[in-house]
Amino acid sequence: MTELVLKTDSAHTLVATTLVETVMATIRQRIAARSLTPGARLPSIRAFAKAMQVSKSTVVEAYERLAAEGAIRSRPGSGFYAAGSLAPLSLAEIGPRLDRAIDPLWVSRQSLEASGEMLKPGCGWMPASWMPQSALRRALRTVARADDVDLADYGTPLGLPPLRQLLARRMEGHGIEVSPEQIMLTESGTQAIDLLCRFLIEPGHTVLVDDPCYFNFHALLRAHRSKVVSVPYTPSGPDIELFAQALAEHKPRLYITNSAIHNPTGAILSPVTAHRLLKLADQSGLTIIEDDIFADFEHTPAPRLAAFDGLNRVVHIGSFSKTLSASVRCGFIAAPRDWIDQLTDLKIATTFGGGRLAAELVLALLKDGSYRKHMDLLRARLSRAMGETSARLKAIGIRPWIDQPAGLFLWCSLPNGVDAAEIARRALADNIVLAPGNAFSLSGTASRFLRFNVAQCQDERIFRVLETAMAR
Amino acid sequence: MTELVLKTDSAHTLVATTLVETVMATIRQRIAARSLTPGARLPSIRAFAKAMQVSKSTVVEAYERLAAEGAIRSRPGSGFYAAGSLAPLSLAEIGPRLDRAIDPLWVSRQSLEASGEMLKPGCGWMPASWMPQSALRRALRTVARADDVDLADYGTPLGLPPLRQLLARRMEGHGIEVSPEQIMLTESGTQAIDLLCRFLIEPGHTVLVDDPCYFNFHALLRAHRSKVVSVPYTPSGPDIELFAQALAEHKPRLYITNSAIHNPTGAILSPVTAHRLLKLADQSGLTIIEDDIFADFEHTPAPRLAAFDGLNRVVHIGSFSKTLSASVRCGFIAAPRDWIDQLTDLKIATTFGGGRLAAELVLALLKDGSYRKHMDLLRARLSRAMGETSARLKAIGIRPWIDQPAGLFLWCSLPNGVDAAEIARRALADNIVLAPGNAFSLSGTASRFLRFNVAQCQDERIFRVLETAMAR
Repeated sequence: MTELVLKTDSAHTLVATTLVETVMATIRQRIAARSLTPGARLPSIRAFAKAMQVSKSTVVEAYERLAAEGAIRSRPGSGFYAAGSLAPLSLAEIGPRLDRAIDPLWVSRQSLEASGEMLKPGCGWMPASWMPQSALRRALRTVARADDVDLADYGTPLGLPPLRQLLARRMEGHGIEVSPEQIMLTESGTQAIDLLCRFLIEPGHTVLVDDPCYFNFHALLRAHRSKVVSVPYTPSGPDIELFAQALAEHKPRLYITNSAIHNPTGAILSPVTAHRLLKLADQSGLTIIEDDIFADFEHTPAPRLAAFDGLNRVVHIGSFSKTLSASVRCGFIAAPRDWIDQLTDLKIATTFGGGRLAAELVLALLKDGSYRKHMDLLRARLSRAMGETSARLKAIGIRPWIDQPAGLFLWCSLPNGVDAAEIARRALADNIVLAPGNAFSLSGTASRFLRFNVAQCQDERIFRVLETAMAR
Repeated sequence: MTELVLKTDSAHTLVATTLVETVMATIRQRIAARSLTPGARLPSIRAFAKAMQVSKSTVVEAYERLAAEGAIRSRPGSGFYAAGSLAPLSLAEIGPRLDRAIDPLWVSRQSLEASGEMLKPGCGWMPASWMPQSALRRALRTVARADDVDLADYGTPLGLPPLRQLLARRMEGHGIEVSPEQIMLTESGTQAIDLLCRFLIEPGHTVLVDDPCYFNFHALLRAHRSKVVSVPYTPSGPDIELFAQALAEHKPRLYITNSAIHNPTGAILSPVTAHRLLKLADQSGLTIIEDDIFADFEHTPAPRLAAFDGLNRVVHIGSFSKTLSASVRCGFIAAPRDWIDQLTDLKIATTFGGGRLAAELVLALLKDGSYRKHMDLLRARLSRAMGETSARLKAIGIRPWIDQPAGLFLWCSLPNGVDAAEIARRALADNIVLAPGNAFSLSGTASRFLRFNVAQCQDERIFRVLETAMAR
């Protein structure tokens, strides 16, 4: 007997599933939520079948499968018991229970788990074919001839010195005065922010984010058990009045933002907003993490908070995942010098040495000019794709929020009455991963928005499926 | 004027330093410890000169250099003020203040920062020349011909499927039944333990470790603000009586250990101790992290807790940093299936995608048999080095704790009255990094011990310097 039900909230895939699986998920959830503690007896088969309104044989099969998995244990003649030594903490528990489809981790997992056949206009990175493949292959062959220590030893705690020198020079190009000793390499931009959160905040501290903002900031801050407060983002940066209000009301320790090209909106911080923001930060002792991973997509340089501030209360982070390779993990932090020393201790404690090989590869690509050439081409290609995608979307009634000057994202509103999460669910059934607005919005006020990655919008099917999904 | 003083506790290098630097370090420490909060006025030059018993010009120079660094700010006519937006949390603050020379991070940083000319018998990994260089270079060239997505895209959330399949088969060889879906790749063994700690414990929870144990467990648990309790390690595993006592008294959530080849002692868990340990864990709901990164150094397989337990309350972790390359970052976690799903959320939130390139490289080396051949040679080479190093040490009065059956470490006691931390300080002046016992010992009862890495003991100078340092 296989009864079918459409499950939308407890699994990562929105597929038809059996009642047996629903019963299993319910038990797993109770174990995770500690309403069934380790060693606790499960409800009897009869009682649970009645409670769940399923047949007893459904519960029997669910229990047996859970026992086979090790989630519960059967004691002959005595029933079933929750296994596990302690009910572990789940990210889903820390925050409010959300619809999984717009949960901060949903878009990440859908994009990361998507098979090759899926289209991913909602995903946050370039298709592999847009990355500098021949330069990457050449860099691998170059590194294959490197010294023994480069191939086998840990990196130094701060990371490869010539790469840090090069990064310092690049930051100077954005007006950020920084010495190589103020730069620490990390395994990714995300790891950089994670280390900074560990360093700067404690559970229960309040952190400000933009609304909307990169959805993984929500997931990351949940993992840190932070109180998150969001401030609406305008086309020229955060709404300064509301920002000031939030500072006064919530006394946040930290503000995390992208300043050059904002994710997901593509907006660019204006100099006047940057100046006001820093004045407010100064008055209230706020630290700012400026996540600048889209820096190299700019056509004309926008203001950097770190440039105005001189790396005093602004920490600057970046990586090469969006521009070079997400397979080669390399990010960095630029921060006050005395912080770097303590961040290094934290990095060693939590990941030990850095990825020397990844740093060597990035250095090889930066040094021989292939990165610069690649970015010139990529910016031009993205520009074209931005225009084309924008036109295709407008033709089916999906409108960009602003005229995007650069980058890879188009933040778009759907016609009145159309719900982005619902469209995302429907599109997934057609093997298309979208990024619904509320995954980015703490206040849940972006239900009419979708974020499109123009580099992932080259397939005509995307627009057909969108049109059909909106028409239903 | 340059007055000299030997600084041993606040810097990572034990070199002669100036009084100006001592004054600077004192101020930095007060800022870090929040006794000088951001914006607070620094002591006047006259008062501080008197308090530190130095000249006023020394304080003036120290303040000016701190201001140049950005740690403090001068306001003309009004004095100096602490900069920084908030006093960030330092690892050194979380735990008790330790002598930096035997602080858990000391050996790590000394080893990681050591220049090429330094000898590192205290470091925890292989010299680069002992690693499979030609196989690594071949693997890099192989990966240079891989598909586009392998070079540029994120890994899937769990990590490269064929590598996880291969890891599952290898674990089966150690009697651990595991499916590839129960394995998640990480960037390193340390990151694996870090993720598990985030998942399993909260600040203030108690964690058991061995005494002595791998020093980075102390640093990692400090970063998690855990209460750490240690149990003496015997040549056949933890002292079971004291382990039972610690369980009853401290109700720990977690126990972190190496079972196959214990770091630093080289001891091997006996089947009877393993059995008793698991029984105790079962009774008290204890979760165990079994860090098995030395697995492939074994000549004959020792019992694995995870094998007895069936990955129920034991989580198994490993990596290739010690056997293949520490430059290519790749570790893994094998855990109950429902935990893996939640660990994946945590991994995405805190590091986003995994290092696909690193996983591809490890897979290439495992698949073509070069890893197996390398390990056969490495074990034989280590065996010889173990015998030789042991003999050299005995000749100068340094005695191995047990007859080491395998691995790379010799845990050795110094003659009566000789202090390992003192010897480590003296050796460092001669460019030799040692690993003093108390860096591994929470109870501070290993002051007579040093850990030697036999692969790093090939240089005659080490024994001469040791002999001289002990004779002083």
